[in-house]
Amino acid sequence: MSHENIHEDTVQLAHGSGGSMSRDLVSQVFLRAFGNASLNRLDDHALVEAGSNRLAFSTDSYVVDPLFFSGGDIGDLAVNGTVNDLCTGGGRPICLSAGFIVEEGLPIADLKRVASSMSKAAKRAGVPIVTGDTKVVDRGKGDKLFINTSGIAVVEHNFEIHGGNLQPGDKVLISGTIADHGISILALREGLSFETSVQSDTAALNGLVADILEAGGGSVHAMRDPTRGGVGAVLNELAESSGAAIALREECLPIAPPVRGACEILGLDPLYIANEGKMIVSVAADRAEAVLRAMRSHELGDQAAEIGEVTADCPGLVSLLTALGTRRIVDMPVGLQLPRIC
Amino acid sequence: MSHENIHEDTVQLAHGSGGSMSRDLVSQVFLRAFGNASLNRLDDHALVEAGSNRLAFSTDSYVVDPLFFSGGDIGDLAVNGTVNDLCTGGGRPICLSAGFIVEEGLPIADLKRVASSMSKAAKRAGVPIVTGDTKVVDRGKGDKLFINTSGIAVVEHNFEIHGGNLQPGDKVLISGTIADHGISILALREGLSFETSVQSDTAALNGLVADILEAGGGSVHAMRDPTRGGVGAVLNELAESSGAAIALREECLPIAPPVRGACEILGLDPLYIANEGKMIVSVAADRAEAVLRAMRSHELGDQAAEIGEVTADCPGLVSLLTALGTRRIVDMPVGLQLPRIC
Repeated sequence: MSHENIHEDTVQLAHGSGGSMSRDLVSQVFLRAFGNASLNRLDDHALVEAGSNRLAFSTDSYVVDPLFFSGGDIGDLAVNGTVNDLCTGGGRPICLSAGFIVEEGLPIADLKRVASSMSKAAKRAGVPIVTGDTKVVDRGKGDKLFINTSGIAVVEHNFEIHGGNLQPGDKVLISGTIADHGISILALREGLSFETSVQSDTAALNGLVADILEAGGGSVHAMRDPTRGGVGAVLNELAESSGAAIALREECLPIAPPVRGACEILGLDPLYIANEGKMIVSVAADRAEAVLRAMRSHELGDQAAEIGEVTADCPGLVSLLTALGTRRIVDMPVGLQLPRIC
Repeated sequence: MSHENIHEDTVQLAHGSGGSMSRDLVSQVFLRAFGNASLNRLDDHALVEAGSNRLAFSTDSYVVDPLFFSGGDIGDLAVNGTVNDLCTGGGRPICLSAGFIVEEGLPIADLKRVASSMSKAAKRAGVPIVTGDTKVVDRGKGDKLFINTSGIAVVEHNFEIHGGNLQPGDKVLISGTIADHGISILALREGLSFETSVQSDTAALNGLVADILEAGGGSVHAMRDPTRGGVGAVLNELAESSGAAIALREECLPIAPPVRGACEILGLDPLYIANEGKMIVSVAADRAEAVLRAMRSHELGDQAAEIGEVTADCPGLVSLLTALGTRRIVDMPVGLQLPRIC
């Protein structure tokens, strides 16, 4: 994978896709400027020593368009997304911040509706919003509403759970169906309707992650929520960071029938479509069954499945054994299928 | 001060000014939705218990226009501003996050220049940027670059230092000249030039605050950096939160001559112009001299001055004894003098 493909001298939409162009921009601009051990890991959160505690710290800005969609809105997305990023190291999220950038002219009713969603999502996750900030930009200099949420989790275990920790022999699990969020946004944006409506899967997974850890303990090697770039991009990142290969089995990928149908009609690969309430888990084989059981016992994991395994050959390679019995490479996407999906 | 003056049903630029319209929006939309003890204090940071530690947690989005100005740019503003918010409770900032919302078409050279400023500012403050996020929005849906920084500080003292803690008899100090940042932005935006150029005062004050605490200990009752809305808005907030009055002396306000000149020409009151590297301190009278000495010994406080005192009459009122010997009320500003100043 090339890290030198910033062809253009200006920022492109594809730089925000979560694919290799995003990575290149981050490496060449931000890592080069800020580089430190914590940031260089490129996990969805940083681990920080604060006095006698180990904390996870994470930030995410949300620019989803439209603001309101089937199954959620920018508000619960912003709460759930950051809670999930905080979880991926196994920490217990304790608080969130919320920073609003509002375009002049946004109906206050819309802002109230978003605030109400955030409040409900925060209560459901059990993670309060404790501090905030509001800025207003002139009409035409923003797009209705952007939200940044940042958060803190307390990391109480001593396990190594991070994106560079995949181990050969691990089973790769996912907590449910893939591509729901991206397809729900796309359907709305393009005015498509399907027989069965597709809803965003936006949800906070801190409860599910606590159950996963209780079942798997230190056998849980890595977790990651496959948002921008989808399962395909995230597994490529994990494989690359860990110097391991991942072999997926197509027939095991849980995909809801209307999402599968939409992807076929639109010519989209569900492996690259964003999820907002799913967790990928890499766990030692001997605990995989127990973890899968724990996931399925949780209301947000009842469709959980084992979708592949980690192998030692071809470091960095993600492949898919198709339903036809052939094996194809699941590349890191370069640009994007869908801009402003989160 | 009315809290019911959201006359309009859409968000106005003035809602982002830091004046009473900002406060009303926050109360009516966000506090109503999220309300919890920590947020309700409306300090520039939240105090959070994390395991055995007390943390300060803060967030701020930066939308300053233009991105680059005399004395700084959006990058060092974003680092210094959040470091300063974290400091206002006397905590020791330990890390920052950085979330970028980039408009398609921004020259990558500009992004690199901003990242380099942030890196330098973070090193100068001794507070690393440990986690980040980048989103890209389509051309015309943003304005070059918005940055959110959030941060964590460890609070190691047991003093009560917060905006609601002003005590009658306290002396009110400020760490240096006022209105530099706002005037530097305004001059650039309006193409004004003055005989002596006015530079933004953007600076991280965590070192200065450590010296203030060492000199004043628990006699330091409140600190606040007077950014949007300036000294006038911030003192009104402190007076209102504390149920105390503040009496300022005009002749004691440190104002650099070119800033004073610019304000006179433009008809602006320097009390309402933003600062980005100043701290207001309310300290018990018997430690005021020691704290002032400590401030003046620090390179970022050599112009520090005692500008007034806290009294028990007229709770919530801020007044100014003018150079002519009359006393005028320093109101909470309603809207804004200068949009997108930070």
